[in-house]
Amino acid sequence: MKGFVPLRQGATIGFLGGGQLGRMMAMAAARLGLKAHVYAPAGDNPAFDVAARHTVAAYEDEAALSRFAAQVDVVTYEFENVPARTAEVIGQKHPVLPGPRALATTQDRLLEKDFVRSLGVETAPYMAVDDGGALARAVAAIGRPSILKTRRFGYDGKGQTAVRMGADLGGLFRGLGGAPCILEGMVAFEKEVSVVAARGHDGAFAAYDLCENVHENHILAKTLAPARAGAATQARAVEIARAIAEALDYVGVFAVEMFLVRDDTGERLLVNEIAPRVHNSGHWTLDGALTSQFEQHIRAIAGWPLGATARHGARVEMTNLIGDQMDRWPGILAEPGAMPQFYGKAETRAGRKMGHVTRIF
Amino acid sequence: MKGFVPLRQGATIGFLGGGQLGRMMAMAAARLGLKAHVYAPAGDNPAFDVAARHTVAAYEDEAALSRFAAQVDVVTYEFENVPARTAEVIGQKHPVLPGPRALATTQDRLLEKDFVRSLGVETAPYMAVDDGGALARAVAAIGRPSILKTRRFGYDGKGQTAVRMGADLGGLFRGLGGAPCILEGMVAFEKEVSVVAARGHDGAFAAYDLCENVHENHILAKTLAPARAGAATQARAVEIARAIAEALDYVGVFAVEMFLVRDDTGERLLVNEIAPRVHNSGHWTLDGALTSQFEQHIRAIAGWPLGATARHGARVEMTNLIGDQMDRWPGILAEPGAMPQFYGKAETRAGRKMGHVTRIF
Repeated sequence: MKGFVPLRQGATIGFLGGGQLGRMMAMAAARLGLKAHVYAPAGDNPAFDVAARHTVAAYEDEAALSRFAAQVDVVTYEFENVPARTAEVIGQKHPVLPGPRALATTQDRLLEKDFVRSLGVETAPYMAVDDGGALARAVAAIGRPSILKTRRFGYDGKGQTAVRMGADLGGLFRGLGGAPCILEGMVAFEKEVSVVAARGHDGAFAAYDLCENVHENHILAKTLAPARAGAATQARAVEIARAIAEALDYVGVFAVEMFLVRDDTGERLLVNEIAPRVHNSGHWTLDGALTSQFEQHIRAIAGWPLGATARHGARVEMTNLIGDQMDRWPGILAEPGAMPQFYGKAETRAGRKMGHVTRIF
Repeated sequence: MKGFVPLRQGATIGFLGGGQLGRMMAMAAARLGLKAHVYAPAGDNPAFDVAARHTVAAYEDEAALSRFAAQVDVVTYEFENVPARTAEVIGQKHPVLPGPRALATTQDRLLEKDFVRSLGVETAPYMAVDDGGALARAVAAIGRPSILKTRRFGYDGKGQTAVRMGADLGGLFRGLGGAPCILEGMVAFEKEVSVVAARGHDGAFAAYDLCENVHENHILAKTLAPARAGAATQARAVEIARAIAEALDYVGVFAVEMFLVRDDTGERLLVNEIAPRVHNSGHWTLDGALTSQFEQHIRAIAGWPLGATARHGARVEMTNLIGDQMDRWPGILAEPGAMPQFYGKAETRAGRKMGHVTRIF
């Protein structure tokens, strides 16, 4: 446990971020007899509706952060872009979990890929791009089509652009704000898969089934568990996740997104991204597994034993409701066996995750 | 629908009562994209921790009730002893569901038993007891041992006393405060069973598996689903529940507790009690069925379609954590596959329901 004292019943977990992940984590905390205090800037914060307390303040408001830290026992977050200084201010009073190594590594695509390679795990080809000249050299080495991504602050396809034949390289680089980038080679993958897993303070590790993900417009549309992949691939994916968690001395739930590539030798896995938090591709566990990823995360950061990850049924499908797909909610409620979760967001916007529905087969 | 307009996404459900049932209903409302406003008198109200809003006021505070009613779209409750006047004040603005007929019938053991008999359904023998003389006549007719119960406000063994050989009848009656009572014959049952079911505004009906209940010190200790009973008995139990719901024009989830009696002709069912609310013997559905009883109740009172009631696994067991049984929580978290729900109550007291744990086999 390295000095971390497991939470008592009735303790309070602080959450940075008031979106649907915070909301589902707060409810999982309540299930386990814990209180939730959600900290988020002003806006539409559906997590407030299920939290015992909430604070509305900026992530840079150090006085508010200190007050928040004084009222909670441990702090976690729903998004990986927590500013380092935010975590540092809170960290003076209470552990912020997952810890600083996980945050620093996953906030920067270059550090993340270097880290993954250092574990002997494959990624797409990539090169750092700090200016237009570097982009030209990277394109010459990696080829086209490829993808230019900002090193920091990207999600759901934001902060990235495709590099195709004939593209104006300088224009592409400036289009991303001139921020430090990486160029990634495009991988001819057969499918995208992910492992959602957890690691405890004591090093205990538990993974859910490898799952298969379908993206539309860079946003997760559907997850299928288990992934249609060979047993060796499934085992290898979990091995990769475990190696990542151990190298980061990770505490909590995380997801590793991977590409499954098929070639003459069979199936291979390339790591695409690590998410140091509960993950959309783990939402199926809420209704489709014995312990949800949200509860698992709370158990892990509380210093409690991890829960069972077994799946209900032969396979489970989770479908996101994005933007006006949310209008389908009455039909989903009427569908026998469909298990919806609606996020209670005040406003429907294009590309916004409004809910999801799980089906067990 | 009889004029009830189904709730929109984002609507608010008002809950009377801040205990664990309100807490689990509030979380179910959130799952479905609804907000919860919990109304309860001062005290330990764990439901507040997962509700978007709460009001602390007495059930007799008509000004507070009116303000509460103005802020919600429909009102439900976690306990059957809601004062008629409370429901009436709220009812001037919004439906209180389940409705007044269900409340009036189930708040009074005499009315309840008369109602059940009027449906052609068996109960234990019973007689009204309004004074010491009536008790003597009832004991002469029904025999001993039998049970003297106040007509109103009893739960978990409170407001009742056994009538044994040699007992001082006048003393027993005065011991219950001289309130109107009924005397019930003791039933030599093989087991106690219950049906948890729901009925919608449109008359749709859905029942969970008949379940089998074990009580200790008059408090539910364990529920097993499905009950070990013949198929005809299971079907008959659901038929009884449906007849009750239709006769009460019921909207929401309810439970019917029954005695299963075995005699020369086989299995027979006697109705013991109707609970016009989610019920402890339905807690197994939270982790053991496709739709929890809490979500089912919200769907029903929202005017939405009922959810699927199918069970996970071959059988499901739910065990209550009562009083200092709650001290077992670390062991339960460590038990593979055990699915706990802790209620977040501030204080452990003897006989108090502190949590429960579900196991799927």
